[in-house]
Amino acid sequence: MPKILREKEILKRKMFSIKELEIKTKKGNVVFDVVEKKDSVMIVPITDDGKLVLIKEYFAATDDYQIGLPKGRIEDGDVKKATNRELQEEIGYKSKKLTKLATVSVSPGNIRHKTHIFLAQELVESKLEGDEIGKIKVIKVPFANFGRMIGKEITEARMIAALYLAKRFLEK
Amino acid sequence: MPKILREKEILKRKMFSIKELEIKTKKGNVVFDVVEKKDSVMIVPITDDGKLVLIKEYFAATDDYQIGLPKGRIEDGDVKKATNRELQEEIGYKSKKLTKLATVSVSPGNIRHKTHIFLAQELVESKLEGDEIGKIKVIKVPFANFGRMIGKEITEARMIAALYLAKRFLEK
Repeated sequence: MPKILREKEILKRKMFSIKELEIKTKKGNVVFDVVEKKDSVMIVPITDDGKLVLIKEYFAATDDYQIGLPKGRIEDGDVKKATNRELQEEIGYKSKKLTKLATVSVSPGNIRHKTHIFLAQELVESKLEGDEIGKIKVIKVPFANFGRMIGKEITEARMIAALYLAKRFLEK
Repeated sequence: MPKILREKEILKRKMFSIKELEIKTKKGNVVFDVVEKKDSVMIVPITDDGKLVLIKEYFAATDDYQIGLPKGRIEDGDVKKATNRELQEEIGYKSKKLTKLATVSVSPGNIRHKTHIFLAQELVESKLEGDEIGKIKVIKVPFANFGRMIGKEITEARMIAALYLAKRFLEK
């Protein structure tokens, strides 16, 4: 099995750092870079009447508005706290019934990061101010309709995974 | 709407580069970093007898072996060529029937990267040598069984999205 011989931080930024790894392999040592990013939560919020609560917000990397699920970084290791904070900041609700659906990676070859996916039910109105770059618009659609939005308004892999995992859980 | 005022490359590495963006927002200008990474393909290969072909390979970021789908970078803009190259390098097949399922992002806030997801059917044996760090093991499981592997052997968000999109396409 390949083995990491050493790690060196070559860049440190607010949202992530870059590490250079030297890896021992059968073909000799290779140098490989990875992005290290704080873990995050992503939430599938569903209202009592079966509506999926989505947000439309500005994404810097693509320089446009996209539809997404509420999500955010885990600041102090407290996953449930981060989940209810993001719900309140991004959609104006908190949840009385959070269910962990999965912990996923986004690109395990290059990125050290995990996203914890939650289903949020029993939503009650509660608003906190967030730190988003642009304005967030809240959109509600019947949960049963998400399939037809995939490939059109919905294009993020984690979000697609989260929605199907929520569907599977709710159909059990 | 926020607006990117300038971009500056602050790090260039083999697999990605880092850019610093200055963004104009209503609350004033903010600095934001993004990772830029070449687009890639990810393939759901299914044999004529309904087996999903998976690989187990070494991932540097997590320093362990994980189960994944064949995938790789698009080197010269030719998506279909990249798809059949990765199939031959990673699982020893090429496909006579490739179907595009979706183009997804992995973390649109921080990463400029798209993954094109394909379903590969009508597989015929054909082997090319790859450049992977460690040895790749090929695993075949009934496609119908992937659901019960999620959260256990299968944890990558793009892969979960790809498998559900393939299921949806095949059930149409």
